[in-house]
Amino acid sequence: MSSPIHPIDMILRKRDGKELSREEIQSFVVGVVDGSITDARIASLLMAVFQRGLSRRELADLTSAMRYSGETFDSAFLGKFTVDKHSTGGVGDKTSLLIAPIVAAAGLADPMISGRSLGHTGGTLDKMETIPGYNTQLSLAEFGRVLQACGASMIGQTKNLVPADRILYALRDHTGTVESPNLICASIMSKKLASGLNGLVLDVKTGSGAFMRRDEDARHLAELMVATGEASGTKTVALLTRMDEPLGRFAGNWVEVWECVDILQNRAHALSADLVDLSTTLAGWMLFLGAEASSAEEGKQRATELLRDGSAYAKWLEMVRLHGGDVSVFDDPAAQHKPAATRVLKADRSGTLVSMDCTEVGWAVQRLGAGREVPGGPVAAHAGIEMHVKLGDRIAEGQPLVTMFSEDAALLDEPERMLRETLRIADQDYVRKPLVREVLTGRDVASGKQS
Amino acid sequence: MSSPIHPIDMILRKRDGKELSREEIQSFVVGVVDGSITDARIASLLMAVFQRGLSRRELADLTSAMRYSGETFDSAFLGKFTVDKHSTGGVGDKTSLLIAPIVAAAGLADPMISGRSLGHTGGTLDKMETIPGYNTQLSLAEFGRVLQACGASMIGQTKNLVPADRILYALRDHTGTVESPNLICASIMSKKLASGLNGLVLDVKTGSGAFMRRDEDARHLAELMVATGEASGTKTVALLTRMDEPLGRFAGNWVEVWECVDILQNRAHALSADLVDLSTTLAGWMLFLGAEASSAEEGKQRATELLRDGSAYAKWLEMVRLHGGDVSVFDDPAAQHKPAATRVLKADRSGTLVSMDCTEVGWAVQRLGAGREVPGGPVAAHAGIEMHVKLGDRIAEGQPLVTMFSEDAALLDEPERMLRETLRIADQDYVRKPLVREVLTGRDVASGKQS
Repeated sequence: MSSPIHPIDMILRKRDGKELSREEIQSFVVGVVDGSITDARIASLLMAVFQRGLSRRELADLTSAMRYSGETFDSAFLGKFTVDKHSTGGVGDKTSLLIAPIVAAAGLADPMISGRSLGHTGGTLDKMETIPGYNTQLSLAEFGRVLQACGASMIGQTKNLVPADRILYALRDHTGTVESPNLICASIMSKKLASGLNGLVLDVKTGSGAFMRRDEDARHLAELMVATGEASGTKTVALLTRMDEPLGRFAGNWVEVWECVDILQNRAHALSADLVDLSTTLAGWMLFLGAEASSAEEGKQRATELLRDGSAYAKWLEMVRLHGGDVSVFDDPAAQHKPAATRVLKADRSGTLVSMDCTEVGWAVQRLGAGREVPGGPVAAHAGIEMHVKLGDRIAEGQPLVTMFSEDAALLDEPERMLRETLRIADQDYVRKPLVREVLTGRDVASGKQS
Repeated sequence: MSSPIHPIDMILRKRDGKELSREEIQSFVVGVVDGSITDARIASLLMAVFQRGLSRRELADLTSAMRYSGETFDSAFLGKFTVDKHSTGGVGDKTSLLIAPIVAAAGLADPMISGRSLGHTGGTLDKMETIPGYNTQLSLAEFGRVLQACGASMIGQTKNLVPADRILYALRDHTGTVESPNLICASIMSKKLASGLNGLVLDVKTGSGAFMRRDEDARHLAELMVATGEASGTKTVALLTRMDEPLGRFAGNWVEVWECVDILQNRAHALSADLVDLSTTLAGWMLFLGAEASSAEEGKQRATELLRDGSAYAKWLEMVRLHGGDVSVFDDPAAQHKPAATRVLKADRSGTLVSMDCTEVGWAVQRLGAGREVPGGPVAAHAGIEMHVKLGDRIAEGQPLVTMFSEDAALLDEPERMLRETLRIADQDYVRKPLVREVLTGRDVASGKQS
């Protein structure tokens, strides 16, 4: 044993609904990382936590112990307020690509450590890697140098960052304890806080395309994450946002870069309006947390201006260059889009687009080749979809609904069937819900604000 | 995978409080035994079962799947009603040594597969192995031959009997899920039912010396076991009995054989009265289940007569001989008791013996050398205690309370301190509770009889 605290005692206490001490939680995380606690005991404790929950104090201690389980990024040397955004995952969710340059252009630093596509959702790294030469695999020292030079860097998790999460997540996946709000919170927040953040804005998705479909589950997770962030000394805000259709115009990999470059170049497509709205809202909160705006609303205006005046695009180019990326592809991003096969799905009746299962849309994108079949597998740069319609739009029979792109024509049939089945056109009214349902600040969570 | 049912689906369903199908439970037990399910997944499911419980149907299915996970004893060829007794464990609990010969003398068969000492409780095998030559390690074929010859055999679990329990129990012990009534029931009943029983009488202990100290926990376990036995087609009765002091005169290994031989030879010591009472009560129920008596009370009278007329002793001698045991040691069992060191604990005041922590008394017996320090370790044949008093007895200062025996004089001090601390003599009345608190039959459990 690496510690005088015996793991079996921890299991028995949590099993019986008792609270674990900070020392117990720390010794557990140490034992997970050094291999002294067996997988069976870890699995038993994870299921006990799943069933019995954690107090706010236990959750903060678990998150902290995981955060410091390996190397961390110390951002103090930057001499800037560091702030990042994290999304719980969606379809066509590409706000990171706009937010990082906006925040950097505003004079703050965004040390963004991102993930890959998971299930039906896309991954920022997979999108960035469609830019020729762009290197997401920087060391933390290189990450620091890019941040110092331009205020934004988007990289993948390093091998030694939060090793406890890598082990715990794999075991949770193996043993059926993924869907625990406490364990989800600790996993997300330990990784985010390990990048040395002064501020964090959480985009917690709800709706048919979110991992947590029920509003109350998403809100509960948001509360836990805000409380945990604040407990660690990071100013934290959560926005509960709608994910019931793909965000913006495209979902895929290169197509999402293309969409963002269009926006950064000040020629946003009309179908990107929701994406621009959400990105500037999130960036507005980040600027407010970093005292670059006196309110989130003022921050949003500033973010919109930084997009309009080209300074966010300048930061984007600078960041991509510092990562080794070839910025010439941004001269004509549409021309860079080279799918081997394209097919247009057209409406078989007229009416209003009243619903879709957005998770099913995400799986269609994945099946086109944009997502992974197995962890570590390849993704196709040029697979994806273009949405021609939004929920609530009036549709005429024969009108294009979705264009599918793939690098393999054989991959078009199943996604076409999936999309045709899930996009529902009917003769009824559609009431559009607001993009941002609710905002939870540290003060809201401390005072127990009710939804 | 050995089965199309994926273990992760079972975990998720039980985790979320749903009922598992018979097929799922069978595939789980098969996967446990063939090694295709990882320890981490087994541990996760065990903790989910601990937290969520099992329905009666699930419990019966789990017990059945475990029972048939390896070889079983088919008792049909005996042509007799087979009936056994199982105790949840106590201090000085040696009823098995009397019951097996009584039941055999009555014309029934008792295929008794027993265990070793565990924690503060003794084990039948450890006691029987103090008889020179007695072999507890028979194959099931040899077991059958002894049963056919004399109607009783007392052996240890064979390697291939209920292998699922061996694996699950070790993992439960490792991962903190021992104290689950459902898992305890499945473990006990799968092993008992694997010996091919037509009837089973359960002696469920309550009180300070029992594993389940609280009456309601013991009653709940009794209900589960009776329902599970009946569901498998075995007539099952549970007696809730008092275990708040050592049963009978001695606790240890050879000393317990000695006490039983005295009883079988019709010269029972006065302090063995509770042991004789409980043994004939349990045997009485067994005779009733096997239709050798028209009621449990009549069965008890018959059992008492079989002890008195020497026919139980004749069966005992026959059984011991068939196991290779040297019956000459029974000529003078007191003379066979050869502890290296003896010490008498005397009362330091006068009054009434009003209480003891009987688990602590059991641990004192274990520390004297009669129990195990580690699983698989040795036990001392001649370690143990003789109780000179019973709860409620009037005590004079200086009167002997307990005589301690050990094979190593250095082992006397700690048990003496433990016993002195726990035996409480006071000037107050003591109300003796009945030895048998309640009887639960299959009909009681089916009709939901309340305590």
